[in-house]
Amino acid sequence: MRRVISSSLARCAGTVCVTSALLQLPQRRFQSQAPPGAPQQGRQQAPGAARADYEHGHETEREFEPPKKPTEVPKFVKINTTDKGITNVQLARAPVNSLSLEFFQELNQWMLWLGSNEETKAVVISSAIPTVFSAGLDLSEVHNPKPERISLFWQSFQEMWLILNSFPKPIIAAINGNSPAAGCIIAMGCDYRVMARGPKDNQNNSRLYRIGLNETKLGLVAPPWTMPAYAYLMGSRQAERMLQLGETPVADDALKLGLIDEVTPDDERAVEVAYQQAERFLTVPQQSRWMARDMMRREYLQMLASDEERNYDTEFFTQFVQSPEVQKNLETYLQRLKSRSRK
Amino acid sequence: MRRVISSSLARCAGTVCVTSALLQLPQRRFQSQAPPGAPQQGRQQAPGAARADYEHGHETEREFEPPKKPTEVPKFVKINTTDKGITNVQLARAPVNSLSLEFFQELNQWMLWLGSNEETKAVVISSAIPTVFSAGLDLSEVHNPKPERISLFWQSFQEMWLILNSFPKPIIAAINGNSPAAGCIIAMGCDYRVMARGPKDNQNNSRLYRIGLNETKLGLVAPPWTMPAYAYLMGSRQAERMLQLGETPVADDALKLGLIDEVTPDDERAVEVAYQQAERFLTVPQQSRWMARDMMRREYLQMLASDEERNYDTEFFTQFVQSPEVQKNLETYLQRLKSRSRK
Amino acid sequence: MRRVISSSLARCAGTVCVTSALLQLPQRRFQSQAPPGAPQQGRQQAPGAARADYEHGHETEREFEPPKKPTEVPKFVKINTTDKGITNVQLARAPVNSLSLEFFQELNQWMLWLGSNEETKAVVISSAIPTVFSAGLDLSEVHNPKPERISLFWQSFQEMWLILNSFPKPIIAAINGNSPAAGCIIAMGCDYRVMARGPKDNQNNSRLYRIGLNETKLGLVAPPWTMPAYAYLMGSRQAERMLQLGETPVADDALKLGLIDEVTPDDERAVEVAYQQAERFLTVPQQSRWMARDMMRREYLQMLASDEERNYDTEFFTQFVQSPEVQKNLETYLQRLKSRSRK
Repeated sequence: MRRVISSSLARCAGTVCVTSALLQLPQRRFQSQAPPGAPQQGRQQAPGAARADYEHGHETEREFEPPKKPTEVPKFVKINTTDKGITNVQLARAPVNSLSLEFFQELNQWMLWLGSNEETKAVVISSAIPTVFSAGLDLSEVHNPKPERISLFWQSFQEMWLILNSFPKPIIAAINGNSPAAGCIIAMGCDYRVMARGPKDNQNNSRLYRIGLNETKLGLVAPPWTMPAYAYLMGSRQAERMLQLGETPVADDALKLGLIDEVTPDDERAVEVAYQQAERFLTVPQQSRWMARDMMRREYLQMLASDEERNYDTEFFTQFVQSPEVQKNLETYLQRLKSRSRK
Repeated sequence: MRRVISSSLARCAGTVCVTSALLQLPQRRFQSQAPPGAPQQGRQQAPGAARADYEHGHETEREFEPPKKPTEVPKFVKINTTDKGITNVQLARAPVNSLSLEFFQELNQWMLWLGSNEETKAVVISSAIPTVFSAGLDLSEVHNPKPERISLFWQSFQEMWLILNSFPKPIIAAINGNSPAAGCIIAMGCDYRVMARGPKDNQNNSRLYRIGLNETKLGLVAPPWTMPAYAYLMGSRQAERMLQLGETPVADDALKLGLIDEVTPDDERAVEVAYQQAERFLTVPQQSRWMARDMMRREYLQMLASDEERNYDTEFFTQFVQSPEVQKNLETYLQRLKSRSRK
Repeated sequence: MRRVISSSLARCAGTVCVTSALLQLPQRRFQSQAPPGAPQQGRQQAPGAARADYEHGHETEREFEPPKKPTEVPKFVKINTTDKGITNVQLARAPVNSLSLEFFQELNQWMLWLGSNEETKAVVISSAIPTVFSAGLDLSEVHNPKPERISLFWQSFQEMWLILNSFPKPIIAAINGNSPAAGCIIAMGCDYRVMARGPKDNQNNSRLYRIGLNETKLGLVAPPWTMPAYAYLMGSRQAERMLQLGETPVADDALKLGLIDEVTPDDERAVEVAYQQAERFLTVPQQSRWMARDMMRREYLQMLASDEERNYDTEFFTQFVQSPEVQKNLETYLQRLKSRSRK
């Protein structure tokens, strides 16, 4: 027993390191974020993780360097930090913030940096594009996928999920537009979700934003590792029904279900409220805050806990998505989109 | 890793086979249901199931034949299929649809056939007997049980649970009468639950149907494998309190709790709405739909995942039910029923 | 298989013994509580626990004697039993029922005795101190902790949690005052929670009681083994947000969240209603009642299932609480309390 504890303490010595062996990859990269005087046992494993340690005791220690500030100007995101240290990460890939390999890679690099960057105290994620938070995965990545990209693409998606869920600072989603599928997944990874009912100039609520894992409607299936997280938010039964039918409720219904935490009348207000919530999440001792968050989410993150599980998931997805039936469903869906946009 | 995937793909080759190794028994029997062109990885294991494969890697492959249409005319159920391919399975064992070994065997055979039968697109389960959906287990099976029947009886109950929960087509419960104990369990295994408030000619709602796992009141206990499913529907705390006290709420309360999904004014309407819901569940690509359902329910089905676990559960039940205390409680309950019916 | 069952039956022979191997320590001590004629398989392991048996098969059988009535007059609790066999355990450590090592030891001894004592049919836990149910852990145990006490202290806290959650008789919390942190944990271990809105002479609801795991606000973190229980009551997402922010809702909000089961206008009424609920929980066959409770809670009790896990948890806590950062946070908090009390 003592051996296990010592080893996990050693691993964390002098740093805020991993929540648990589970999340080594992304969390290790937050190392430099260790506040001065952080306790040795700061990001120690919680009880219950001991068992995992036994099983994976053979995993060799990897060396991680603290993340560096990305040198290139970001193409797909806009990043601004207020006087109070709240950093706004705006998704900005026209026309609908669809998520490509390069988008995930850029977002992940910046998030890793922000996790370590002293100036940043909290993050608000919103969209720079009117009426859409994110349309989800870029379908050109999954329709007739390129074999050399598809695994990398999926791994970068997994990594985003792990980074969001283990981010060491408060992270608030300002959902200022429609947010289906992977758009919803970005919001699910945050600590708090504020959603706009619709756009600012919305007469009589004629335009209402929607959110939800609707992959089923396209003939796909939501990533298996998002399903327990969906249930975490709304209860298992609601999550199952919504997944089976690919439901995308409007903001007020999403609030009742528990999928989001707060509704605002419009997009602008959503971002304002997200800033206020970020400040609220900063009023408590931060080490305690993220320890509680980590302990609660550990269970649902276990599905991507090891390289082995991440690889299995990647193989599962790449084979599934390349099947004739899935490709046919995607084809049908894309044709329908095209014929709609022609009208 | 690859070995595991290949093996699980091989197992499923050319068929819609098992959700996972967990559910081999019933699901294998749906094999013939494979739609033309179904992808090899159709009913592949979801990520996370890999581990089970390692542990049970020694399980030998069994040969299953696709289920054949039962040759005998059903005694305890009535089966009718609409033009639209919705099959109504009516429970029809007078006087109160109590569930005997032969009832389970017949129901299971027909459900396996319907899972494979091309004509059937979805199933609606209802009762052919006025004011009772099902009174639950036939108490003559558990009061002074016959040693040679009791294990078979319990196994056929387990198998029904696995068949319902892994059924490859939408399956809607039209709860057109009281539904205590195992009656409730049938409904719990479906994809959607519509419940009538009371009978058609119900003056001032003077007669209200009830549903719930009330085994505690009889001195029994609900099957352990239904408890996580009860929590899945209503949250753990509500489920625990209802189990402790054996509560059987009326339809409107069951709806608020999440035990059912929809209330109708009367029995006839319940069946109509169930048909409408079946059609709604058919509007999405079906492979995606059941993959989502399978991934969500896998956790609670794990308690009956292997032969070993099913056998343990059967031994637990048979010993428990034969204990003097349980038999005394049943005796008391049956005496009370008798004295009531005499009045 | 049979071997496992036989061994677990043997272990329970003639007694109401452990729920499962998991809970040997406290539950074994209830042995004498076996009602006359209790079935051999009374407190048998539920299915699914089989696996644990395999893994821990090497655990040697320990001998436990039935608990004896404590010989000393209790210092920190008051104990009275009504004609109907409902025992009221009043927390009575002035000024605010803060929980010290000696408090836990005394409470645990008496609860073990009450679990076995024939006269006691059910227990109501309340506070003898106006306006506070319990202020939580005695901070003098955790601020500059004494090395020789801190492990014992934490173990006695763990043991209280196991005793409450596996108590063989109905146990109702009458929360007649504020109930933060470990105060809330006592209530969480009960079968039903009745909470007073405020004190009796409460003009215009100007004084409202609060409840919740607010450890985060002190720079601590709730015990990891209480987190799944918090989620059990309120759903994972609500639990996470409340843990992150250290929220302490008033009674009416706690009811909406599911943290408590019933609100009464004042303290006196809370105790009265708790007695009524105790009687309600006694109306069903008791073996069935606690079997259902045990099977439902087994999952969240697994975190303290073995000596190994309890030791790991204890080491985690003792190291965490002795870290400079935690001690600094406690110092700050205690200073604030002092300056407040001076005003």
